Amino acid sequence: MMRILKFSDSDFDTEFRRIEQRAEEVPAGIEETVKNIIADVRKRGDVALFELTAKFDKLELDVDSLEVTEEEIEAAMAQISAESLSALQLAAERIADYHAKQKQETWISTDESDVLVGQMVRPLDRVGIYVPGGKATYPSSVLMNAVPAKVAGVEEVIMVVPMPNGEVNPHVLAAAKISGVDRIFKLGGAQAVAALAYGTDSVPRVDKITGPGNIYVATAKQLVFGQVDIDMIAGPSEILVINDGSGNAAHIAADLLSQAEHDELASSVLVTSCEKMAAAVQAEVEKQLSELSREGIARKSIDDYGAIILAQNLDEAIAFSNRIAPEHLELAVDSPFDILPQIKHAGAVFMGHHTPEAAGDYLAGPNHTLPTGGTARFFSPLSLDDFVKKSSIVSFSQAGLQRLGNEIVHIAELEGLEAHAKSVSIRLKK
Amino acid sequence: MMRILKFSDSDFDTEFRRIEQRAEEVPAGIEETVKNIIADVRKRGDVALFELTAKFDKLELDVDSLEVTEEEIEAAMAQISAESLSALQLAAERIADYHAKQKQETWISTDESDVLVGQMVRPLDRVGIYVPGGKATYPSSVLMNAVPAKVAGVEEVIMVVPMPNGEVNPHVLAAAKISGVDRIFKLGGAQAVAALAYGTDSVPRVDKITGPGNIYVATAKQLVFGQVDIDMIAGPSEILVINDGSGNAAHIAADLLSQAEHDELASSVLVTSCEKMAAAVQAEVEKQLSELSREGIARKSIDDYGAIILAQNLDEAIAFSNRIAPEHLELAVDSPFDILPQIKHAGAVFMGHHTPEAAGDYLAGPNHTLPTGGTARFFSPLSLDDFVKKSSIVSFSQAGLQRLGNEIVHIAELEGLEAHAKSVSIRLKK
Repeated sequence: MMRILKFSDSDFDTEFRRIEQRAEEVPAGIEETVKNIIADVRKRGDVALFELTAKFDKLELDVDSLEVTEEEIEAAMAQISAESLSALQLAAERIADYHAKQKQETWISTDESDVLVGQMVRPLDRVGIYVPGGKATYPSSVLMNAVPAKVAGVEEVIMVVPMPNGEVNPHVLAAAKISGVDRIFKLGGAQAVAALAYGTDSVPRVDKITGPGNIYVATAKQLVFGQVDIDMIAGPSEILVINDGSGNAAHIAADLLSQAEHDELASSVLVTSCEKMAAAVQAEVEKQLSELSREGIARKSIDDYGAIILAQNLDEAIAFSNRIAPEHLELAVDSPFDILPQIKHAGAVFMGHHTPEAAGDYLAGPNHTLPTGGTARFFSPLSLDDFVKKSSIVSFSQAGLQRLGNEIVHIAELEGLEAHAKSVSIRLKK
Repeated sequence: MMRILKFSDSDFDTEFRRIEQRAEEVPAGIEETVKNIIADVRKRGDVALFELTAKFDKLELDVDSLEVTEEEIEAAMAQISAESLSALQLAAERIADYHAKQKQETWISTDESDVLVGQMVRPLDRVGIYVPGGKATYPSSVLMNAVPAKVAGVEEVIMVVPMPNGEVNPHVLAAAKISGVDRIFKLGGAQAVAALAYGTDSVPRVDKITGPGNIYVATAKQLVFGQVDIDMIAGPSEILVINDGSGNAAHIAADLLSQAEHDELASSVLVTSCEKMAAAVQAEVEKQLSELSREGIARKSIDDYGAIILAQNLDEAIAFSNRIAPEHLELAVDSPFDILPQIKHAGAVFMGHHTPEAAGDYLAGPNHTLPTGGTARFFSPLSLDDFVKKSSIVSFSQAGLQRLGNEIVHIAELEGLEAHAKSVSIRLKK
């Protein structure tokens, strides 16, 4: 049974800290292992990739079979149903439309005629997308990473996906094709990240690596950060549902369980101002849990990190939400837009009773890669911004430098940087 | 004498790799030391801060003297000249104007009446700014970090600045006052970073830490990343000047030296298509070097990491620039806007003969915190974006979910996520 708590419970803070701090510690030794793999790929390049892939993925590769061929992609496309193809295409289009709205243009100011300043926005040249293989193969993850990169104008999108025993999910390849991925390599794990970060004879070096992966992949991404850019490192996923007593308990229960089925470490929390709703959702969760094929995972998640919290009122619920900065926040209330301005921190906000989180996971348009574990206080969803970079532009005319030069020289001298001062004063007319 | 190289030199690539890879290795033991300091501050809070500050900064603090008082700030303001005050104010205004242009608004799409998607932009709640103390105390660094935070709408900007033996640069305090910094703590080193990241009884926990610091500060920032956000970790600074033979050799030499005086690891490189200019700049650098008070530093930087490269033509120079992605790029050519579109990667671009880098360092408006060491391929200058975060907004009406629900269910089922599918199907009318 999902626990029902109150903010006034004496152990509430302790209990919630346990949920907030549920992210697993990185097991000792992993960093060392990953460092060795990266060093090996840097040193031996393709040969290291072949050996490590044979060892970890039981897949023998050579320079000819390392990359997925056009024929292999066509074969995958032929395997999937027309319905699947059209659902993935619809998702890709909607994701592209949303991310296109995030586009920022290069600008140059016109405030002053003698000093122009501006900002140039350019896509990254080449991006690497990590896609997990094996059991959890998610075509939506391909779309959510590759489509924004292509909308941003990234020339070359390189995907890596491990193919344990040579197996690959045809929907993943179809999603890559639909997204416009340029090249796909049959690589996974820390070795794939190392190959993307440093390049080998076969795998080109990229400027940024995005996409989810296991602890080896996440550790490798952290270690190559600075050599390339990376997206955020995601922790376990969470949903917070705020409810005012309106709506349908079965719907809310279904939303909580959609989070819980992901992962035993997922956290699903309802805060409601209505005691009756609390009890009804509690009962519905039990009922629906028993019908789920992933009942084991979902039940453990609900038992360990699920909770129903009874709030005195909506304000208390909102204050709590702002405190924990949830990854997914559902406003399951009658007038969600009325309270949106009070929401300070959340990865994504799902508005009202007809917006289950799952809608946002696939095809509403916004990205499903969101900041977890309270990092919505300072991190943003994956977006077009992740696939562009900016350069400042500064242009002084002679008159402009003459007008502002003395102040520049003054500050340079304050800071004891004489050559800085001189580079300006040497250009000034006396 | 500054070396003159050609791209066709047999050892050019080796030589340039040496310059590109000049960043110092983090000395062994530093990470361990910093980890211990962070753990100590997390455990013992203020007490640890007082002890570590007494030890490293020879400054005895207690809860009453830890924070800079209004009186101390007023005293600093009274010490500085009217010229200095007005130069810093001018810089602050221009920095504010520039960064205000980077503001992004919250938006909600109106493409579909039954599905609304949008992006909410909000300032971070609280930001910490690290300002180095001691010898290199730069008021411009306070302005470049604090002003954008305030323009973004950050409610509380907390500055930390070490005061070895109690000494502080009054211009640094004046810059803080001008920028609207809310609170200043007399703290530095890894302990200041730890206090900002985790909070103590006296120092509030922040959401992001920005600003330059020594290797202990940089290491601490990397270690607390994830607990809070941080800005990029800067490596040694560099300038690349592209020249077409036009302009004044003395000006170009002065610009190269303004970079070289920063740091022995700084790199100053000119690429010119004109042999005469190469020789003239070489001579001018020698001449101006001997007049510099920081000659020792500048000469070592020029000797170790300076170079004049003779290019066949401007295209070759631009290709080289795009390869190394310089932090500062001067287009010391007659028509800089003609070649700007070919510049793919640079932290900041200084246009034409009247725009020395130093102008951008202080008061042109753009930020002087720029990506170094080739990371302009994927990192951007510090900007307003660093002080806001975004949340996605998704709102389906009943009709919208009915229209798109089948595709959502289809993809959820493709991915084997039954509870995801159910959270949508349970809401659909049959």
